[in-house]
Amino acid sequence: MTDDADDGADVPPREEFRHDPIEHATVREGMTVGELVAEYGNAGIGAGALHEAVDITAAMFEEEVTTFVGFAGAMVPAGMRRIVADLIRDGHTDVLVTTGANLTHDAIEAIGGKHHHGRAGPHDTRSRAGRRNSADASREHGDGTAREHDETLRDEWVDRIYDVYLPQEHFTLLENHLRSEVFPEIETRVTIQQLTDELGRANAAVNDREDIEGGPGIAAAAHEHDVPIYAPAIQDSVLGLQAWLYSQTTDFGLDALGDMSGLNDIAYEAGSAGALVIGGGVPKNFVLQTMLVAPDAYDYAVQLTMDPEHAGGLSGASLEEARSWGKLEKAARNASVYADATITLPLVAAAARERIGE
Amino acid sequence: MTDDADDGADVPPREEFRHDPIEHATVREGMTVGELVAEYGNAGIGAGALHEAVDITAAMFEEEVTTFVGFAGAMVPAGMRRIVADLIRDGHTDVLVTTGANLTHDAIEAIGGKHHHGRAGPHDTRSRAGRRNSADASREHGDGTAREHDETLRDEWVDRIYDVYLPQEHFTLLENHLRSEVFPEIETRVTIQQLTDELGRANAAVNDREDIEGGPGIAAAAHEHDVPIYAPAIQDSVLGLQAWLYSQTTDFGLDALGDMSGLNDIAYEAGSAGALVIGGGVPKNFVLQTMLVAPDAYDYAVQLTMDPEHAGGLSGASLEEARSWGKLEKAARNASVYADATITLPLVAAAARERIGE
Amino acid sequence: MTDDADDGADVPPREEFRHDPIEHATVREGMTVGELVAEYGNAGIGAGALHEAVDITAAMFEEEVTTFVGFAGAMVPAGMRRIVADLIRDGHTDVLVTTGANLTHDAIEAIGGKHHHGRAGPHDTRSRAGRRNSADASREHGDGTAREHDETLRDEWVDRIYDVYLPQEHFTLLENHLRSEVFPEIETRVTIQQLTDELGRANAAVNDREDIEGGPGIAAAAHEHDVPIYAPAIQDSVLGLQAWLYSQTTDFGLDALGDMSGLNDIAYEAGSAGALVIGGGVPKNFVLQTMLVAPDAYDYAVQLTMDPEHAGGLSGASLEEARSWGKLEKAARNASVYADATITLPLVAAAARERIGE
Amino acid sequence: MTDDADDGADVPPREEFRHDPIEHATVREGMTVGELVAEYGNAGIGAGALHEAVDITAAMFEEEVTTFVGFAGAMVPAGMRRIVADLIRDGHTDVLVTTGANLTHDAIEAIGGKHHHGRAGPHDTRSRAGRRNSADASREHGDGTAREHDETLRDEWVDRIYDVYLPQEHFTLLENHLRSEVFPEIETRVTIQQLTDELGRANAAVNDREDIEGGPGIAAAAHEHDVPIYAPAIQDSVLGLQAWLYSQTTDFGLDALGDMSGLNDIAYEAGSAGALVIGGGVPKNFVLQTMLVAPDAYDYAVQLTMDPEHAGGLSGASLEEARSWGKLEKAARNASVYADATITLPLVAAAARERIGE
Repeated sequence: MTDDADDGADVPPREEFRHDPIEHATVREGMTVGELVAEYGNAGIGAGALHEAVDITAAMFEEEVTTFVGFAGAMVPAGMRRIVADLIRDGHTDVLVTTGANLTHDAIEAIGGKHHHGRAGPHDTRSRAGRRNSADASREHGDGTAREHDETLRDEWVDRIYDVYLPQEHFTLLENHLRSEVFPEIETRVTIQQLTDELGRANAAVNDREDIEGGPGIAAAAHEHDVPIYAPAIQDSVLGLQAWLYSQTTDFGLDALGDMSGLNDIAYEAGSAGALVIGGGVPKNFVLQTMLVAPDAYDYAVQLTMDPEHAGGLSGASLEEARSWGKLEKAARNASVYADATITLPLVAAAARERIGE
Repeated sequence: MTDDADDGADVPPREEFRHDPIEHATVREGMTVGELVAEYGNAGIGAGALHEAVDITAAMFEEEVTTFVGFAGAMVPAGMRRIVADLIRDGHTDVLVTTGANLTHDAIEAIGGKHHHGRAGPHDTRSRAGRRNSADASREHGDGTAREHDETLRDEWVDRIYDVYLPQEHFTLLENHLRSEVFPEIETRVTIQQLTDELGRANAAVNDREDIEGGPGIAAAAHEHDVPIYAPAIQDSVLGLQAWLYSQTTDFGLDALGDMSGLNDIAYEAGSAGALVIGGGVPKNFVLQTMLVAPDAYDYAVQLTMDPEHAGGLSGASLEEARSWGKLEKAARNASVYADATITLPLVAAAARERIGE
Repeated sequence: MTDDADDGADVPPREEFRHDPIEHATVREGMTVGELVAEYGNAGIGAGALHEAVDITAAMFEEEVTTFVGFAGAMVPAGMRRIVADLIRDGHTDVLVTTGANLTHDAIEAIGGKHHHGRAGPHDTRSRAGRRNSADASREHGDGTAREHDETLRDEWVDRIYDVYLPQEHFTLLENHLRSEVFPEIETRVTIQQLTDELGRANAAVNDREDIEGGPGIAAAAHEHDVPIYAPAIQDSVLGLQAWLYSQTTDFGLDALGDMSGLNDIAYEAGSAGALVIGGGVPKNFVLQTMLVAPDAYDYAVQLTMDPEHAGGLSGASLEEARSWGKLEKAARNASVYADATITLPLVAAAARERIGE
Repeated sequence: MTDDADDGADVPPREEFRHDPIEHATVREGMTVGELVAEYGNAGIGAGALHEAVDITAAMFEEEVTTFVGFAGAMVPAGMRRIVADLIRDGHTDVLVTTGANLTHDAIEAIGGKHHHGRAGPHDTRSRAGRRNSADASREHGDGTAREHDETLRDEWVDRIYDVYLPQEHFTLLENHLRSEVFPEIETRVTIQQLTDELGRANAAVNDREDIEGGPGIAAAAHEHDVPIYAPAIQDSVLGLQAWLYSQTTDFGLDALGDMSGLNDIAYEAGSAGALVIGGGVPKNFVLQTMLVAPDAYDYAVQLTMDPEHAGGLSGASLEEARSWGKLEKAARNASVYADATITLPLVAAAARERIGE
């Protein structure tokens, strides 16, 4: 348009800028998930990144790679429990790092509890109590709009997790499970991983003993397949609160540092290492920092996250940033998919399975 | 745990909070996209919303619904061109509202141009020229880090769109196409929709005449199937700049208001109306506001967006908000999926096609 | 920690990586906004970017820079009207590109209408009509939770914009204003800028004539100070709908391309050019693309946005990307602040004013 | 416009929808931060929420409120260290819950280390190794664009945290500090809070002994003012890695559960309780979950976050959701500000100080 642009036409760009055309995705009835992901490979932005994430994940699953899985966010309440349990059962997970919350909700389902489809509540906005007298403020609480949704849930003993509901009674049932099946088997100071392993054993036993449709779940699968589960911040969960309450009256206790030897041994012994990071938080950082005390670093890394990179925190940080720390090998393959992990995790898992033909 | 919680166990919550358990998603090798989406229906957060979006989209496709499609964002450069063109060809789009940019890039491909896979560049951070002397500042530009990526592209006449590259020469080729095949056929004042229809005709003709693999694309499909394309902000694009340049020396011109009669006639005549909103911006608002001057409102609405609701703008606004304006019927079915539309659009399109068995 | 790290201690990094220490922000009672922003300069992430944005904005205000302001999003309803009007009155804006919606809400306030503090509504989640029978579905609408908020607003003729309410009667009052004060003064085909100028004149006249506290606003300030307002997608707004309705029965019409000559003349004549981009969408792109047909490009650019860069669209695109297109000079100073613009716009405006001592 | 709208004009909305007009923010040279925040109170979206957050924070500071502060994200590296240390020194923090990373970087500065202003790196995109042969892939690593930035930093022993650089040598200096001043003073099994207290003592001593401009920092302030610091996931940090390495050869160890008694005692004894949550993650959840085992819940709650609510995880969850769990009192005042916390924390802290006149 401008002279510049005309010159542009006369000076074709270097080959590197034109060797790899976007062919455009296409879809058809009955295509498989793997075929859909192949189409993503013809696209850019998130679709292209997801295609690369599947490539890398399939390589981690197929090759001799020690795979460290980070699993954060409200993923078990949201319905991702079976997918992760199956990744463990099928040998695609060597280490799982997750939150106490995911282990709490996994156990609730193992003993027959259910989460429920609900509705996301109101945004969190000004109470406006600050700008009105208290009579107004109190009236406000019953005005059928903003706050009432969660106040009703509170009255009904239902805890909300975005659009998932959990009746509070399940925490009482979990307490009974922990106090009858888990903690008494320990009665001493153990590492967090030893507790999660014991939890997995007990979840499997109860789930098997009673007629529960939900399946034994993640901790049980890890117990059965000797996959260690690390939960550095376990005290930051209902499971942790129960552990603390039990420790008040017994010799039971948790050693915060003991697990790091086992984790780092695995990192040391890994010939080739891969990270599959689902969500951010402590699980993401703990998976990545392991390489700070290992001779090598990750050869493969995939993250599925929704935290924006510009927030500056680790949860949304690019995997390139991890390269500066030596957490990834310079030549590592890495991909980040910035999209809802409840959508991308099943997509990546299904496509990677199809890719490796299992 | 607290007395509260114990009471909770004694007072089971109302039935409405427990009738609809989350069954957890599961994946397997070779499953179809429709089967994956059925699994999403067992989950919450984005996966659950995506399942509902497919339900509603399939209903729009299958039933007698007049479907208005909003299509914003860098979707054609990113590789979504064929999916939208096919939705038009297969009769699933009655009105398309998009941006001048998507029409520009659609035409570039129609005449044989290609976008290319590239790399996303550096974040946009402090030049630090403000905190250093100009010698430092100039040194900075060659320091091999932040800015160099886009400066190199500039030197090579390559325009970047996130991780998509477009050699600038294609804008010159587009200019030739518009000035030889499109504008001379008009030579008068027309509406924007008349221009996009003429563009579609010319794209199809050139694409057919020459051996171009890329396919004639969106505007051509709309021309062939009598689907009007509205682009209210067409002047905000290279296509619009070319239209303006041409108008300087001819009687050619564009009427900004003329299209609204046709659009509103369609809204008036719609027995049942649906909105499939891909991205935000003008296309989203223009699709929704049409109902402000129609007797009824949308009975179905789906949006695929990445703008956060808390930004407060229309692009990320919930469809519930549109209900307060009367843009959606009170009883309308609506779902919003907050995730990368380059991932969710192919997913929803493939699953909806599988659902209706076409 | 590893041998690597020890080596690291022996091999100090290049000077460029250590010359500019973060000194940490500190705050105290009664500090000015400019003093706060100076503290931001000691910090990184968004605070550091905001400090740079103020530096650049102050330079645009103080030096001989032709300043193009893009203004998108629900900023007038949200309370940003006076800040932008004052930037025009004080000579800090040479061109304003905005949306029809902002002009619509600016006019509503100019004639005495008010927006109101409200509450953000529920998220947009599954209606679950898909998974229940219609009796359930209908019951759902009155269940006091998700949808009721916006249905109540609909019943009360109140339109919601995130947490801002606007009684619908104001649209009727706006219609009267346009049909009595604005359109009859035109009665012919004009450019969009000519309409916005006429609107500003009428807003000022009515605001002055009647005792209205709100002030004449943005369009009035632009009219009085000969600052052109461009709104490429004006038909995508209630103002545009009214313009169309009026055009149905009169000779009134809007020329979509006519404004581009005036805009591009300003760009051509600009010795030094700056872009202050508030929000994304059409205003952002229209401000930036102007330089595609100008001999030079922006020497200064600041954007205040909330769209994530990884969405890939233009709204969240970095200003580095614009450099590849030649929209920014290679040596341009640019900063992007990814945070709520209703917070950052007043902050940047106040600090820039303090910096230049006005 | 439609008959509906005309009716709307005849049926004015209920008083509750019109009693609280938006007056529009205005700014002027030299205004104080408190005056700016007062202007935010005239606005909606994020500005309105921020005004409410300042109201609530000022109430927490002024009244007899036991204040629990959650502090997550890369806030110390980003320059927020002094603000939080001052909140402790001035008696506005009764409990601090943070990450091992923030304590690590706080200690690095206490002993004289510096973080540095740098540049955010490239996005994390496709290596494209998947679509090219390894020769291409290896060439790619030196192509001067995407990856080189972080590879250069790696070669220079510089760790990147978004746009903040930290020379790796500081980790070695931290190791010396911990092994000479901190761990030898313990030599037994302690709680995490006991370690952070000992760290604070040592940071203060070294900082005082040597001529270090940076100030002793957060842990030192907490030690001096008997404010407990809890870091549930301390092992997920360089500080935790060092603690583990030391524990390998000594009797030193960390008890994961021991701190919960002290924390819960504080919650029990709190007459009125407030939560100031900066960032999400473990600190946010740990602050909130404390009320699950306390008789009452938070009366005041403010969160400054960037995680989008639609991600469904706890980090972005609204405080209304916490109400369903009983973590907030039904009548609690709460506000969430969804914007960069490096911008909003200094803003809220300065304005709250001005409000209470200190």
